[in-house]
Amino acid sequence: MTKPGPLSDLTIIDLSRVLAGPYATMVLSDLGARVIKVERPDGGDDSRHIGPFKAEGVPESAYFASINRGKQSIALNLKDAGDRAIFEALLARADVLVENYRPGVMASLGFGWEALHARYPKLIYAAASGFGHTGPDSQKAAYDMVVQAMGGIMSVTGWPGGPPTRVGTSVGDITAGLFTVIGILSALHERGKTGVGAFVDVAMLDCQIAILENAVARYAVTGVSPGPLGARHPSITPFAAYACQGGHIVIAAGNDGLWQAMLDALDLGMFKDDPRFASNSARSDHADAVAHVIESRLADAPPSHWLPLLDAAGVPCGPLHNIQQALDYPQTRARNMAIHAAYPDGTPLLAAGNPVKISGHGDPVTRPGAPSLDADRAAILKELGL
Amino acid sequence: MTKPGPLSDLTIIDLSRVLAGPYATMVLSDLGARVIKVERPDGGDDSRHIGPFKAEGVPESAYFASINRGKQSIALNLKDAGDRAIFEALLARADVLVENYRPGVMASLGFGWEALHARYPKLIYAAASGFGHTGPDSQKAAYDMVVQAMGGIMSVTGWPGGPPTRVGTSVGDITAGLFTVIGILSALHERGKTGVGAFVDVAMLDCQIAILENAVARYAVTGVSPGPLGARHPSITPFAAYACQGGHIVIAAGNDGLWQAMLDALDLGMFKDDPRFASNSARSDHADAVAHVIESRLADAPPSHWLPLLDAAGVPCGPLHNIQQALDYPQTRARNMAIHAAYPDGTPLLAAGNPVKISGHGDPVTRPGAPSLDADRAAILKELGL
Repeated sequence: MTKPGPLSDLTIIDLSRVLAGPYATMVLSDLGARVIKVERPDGGDDSRHIGPFKAEGVPESAYFASINRGKQSIALNLKDAGDRAIFEALLARADVLVENYRPGVMASLGFGWEALHARYPKLIYAAASGFGHTGPDSQKAAYDMVVQAMGGIMSVTGWPGGPPTRVGTSVGDITAGLFTVIGILSALHERGKTGVGAFVDVAMLDCQIAILENAVARYAVTGVSPGPLGARHPSITPFAAYACQGGHIVIAAGNDGLWQAMLDALDLGMFKDDPRFASNSARSDHADAVAHVIESRLADAPPSHWLPLLDAAGVPCGPLHNIQQALDYPQTRARNMAIHAAYPDGTPLLAAGNPVKISGHGDPVTRPGAPSLDADRAAILKELGL
Repeated sequence: MTKPGPLSDLTIIDLSRVLAGPYATMVLSDLGARVIKVERPDGGDDSRHIGPFKAEGVPESAYFASINRGKQSIALNLKDAGDRAIFEALLARADVLVENYRPGVMASLGFGWEALHARYPKLIYAAASGFGHTGPDSQKAAYDMVVQAMGGIMSVTGWPGGPPTRVGTSVGDITAGLFTVIGILSALHERGKTGVGAFVDVAMLDCQIAILENAVARYAVTGVSPGPLGARHPSITPFAAYACQGGHIVIAAGNDGLWQAMLDALDLGMFKDDPRFASNSARSDHADAVAHVIESRLADAPPSHWLPLLDAAGVPCGPLHNIQQALDYPQTRARNMAIHAAYPDGTPLLAAGNPVKISGHGDPVTRPGAPSLDADRAAILKELGL
């Protein structure tokens, strides 16, 4: 018998909209937490109106449904006295409040961190914002695209000399969502010791800086901002997409042993003693020559020929999957990473699963649907005795 | 007076190498946890030998130093009886074990999850691997590049018709690191209720699926795998990098009000009633026309002319920063996101800060250095009474 998730004792009040905050509360919900979305009465979460939609002419957002599965919804006008009383009754019973308004909006409603902390000392208050609650830009709004640009990740993504290139998913929002979850769980850990909640302040821009890793180290050492490198790693070689007959494969031979194994697998033993390729540093200095050697051989056959040879030699490699191939891949299926969530009306919706597998807990291949706006009002009011 | 981080009561034993695991334990360390790296005696963590290096001819890795700041190091041969006894004494006092070996390696050493759980029932065991501990590919090795390719993110990154494009940072490792932290903290939360540890199994490939968001929804709705879109968002318009005189800026006008505000700010009021641009859906269907309208105006002046106008109108926008500009940006500095860590010899090293800001805890602009291999052996043995 499996338990309903390690966070099943937690209640999250979620004022957040669109992606960073809702992604954070989706992760918490997938791990068992109860998430109550508090939405504006006029239309609710903005992402209810952002595509892709269920079908032509059916303005039911698949985007909203995929990120808000398993949550409850109540529509509250936080400027209305009656609705404020409901909101306060929710906070009194909650463990965590999540919001992603611009800094200052909650305080102007009388629900800033200081005010809430005084009234609900155990409550953890997590704010995910574009630029954070401090600093000269704190009052500015940001979306994913803005922080991808300002945080530097676009400067190292794409091809040398090519146009600016966005990371194809909203890593600005998603990494902020993940760090927000980490902040919430860290504050919960501390509350377990002290009994007192804390304010968690996560900025999307900060999170973009935090994931630059190697690019910061290269700049720190050289004083020169690195540029984009197309499809290869800056300091591990070979570690790139290489052209084959009719396609590309990725080869990631991260150390000398794997390099030698790759040369054997591709029948390129004549390069074993080539001084240009004697170490990872040497290979990185001659990355173009490495690519030329590999691609000259790979051009003879398609990916389906080369991947089994490299696999058999233990060389990390793989095909370039499109979204369908990634979701249909047997390992993806075996790990319950392609699941069914549902639209508010119960229609199933293919979605990504929960990547945090914890022993003793189920890992269902179906998840409850996303809520219609205000769907849970009656049940919540009854529960609150209002 | 600030406290030393919300996780300061925790001890993490860290067998992990290179990036996914070490990034996870860096996040935990930045939040106050004590992290003891257990490294192989012959060379230690592989990333000690991966560039960028401190200087030409100085094989001290800036990459290693930036990810392993504030950790301790002890070199142990887990096949040696004496070293195994030290390792077991560490586990007996630890809260969490982190490893990123291929599944099966720890069991072959006698340190698999079942064996350790029987001996140390409170211990949380977190494994970050390429493909996870279950499924047909579980025994295969993966590096960042492999899961970026197989997980689909490369299929939506880059330009239509262009070559495959890697996300310029190791999002395959980093997202696995972040989900591993979330798994560890979730298991700690449950241990607070039950007193019993759990096994956390995070796969890099799973994490790539989990961050596809919009791309999965688009595929779910259409049955067609989406392709790359260069520098724009698939379903929000305008939400892209646009060319100006001598550069690019990002404009992210995510709703109708912001679209109108942008038209006013750019003196493009003649398009206010254009039916092609009447809603976000309509604008997304005419994204090329939107870009043409915007870029025709932006071509008249450089980014420094347009950004203040858009800022004043409240339209989310921003410059494309290179790494130096991102790190030197006043908001980045104000948020302590460009900090100094240090090489093992104490030489300062510019690095990214901790994006999880939690009230009551310090957010230092200097962090302790990374350890030399086995630097803490004597102190640890003394502490263990060995």
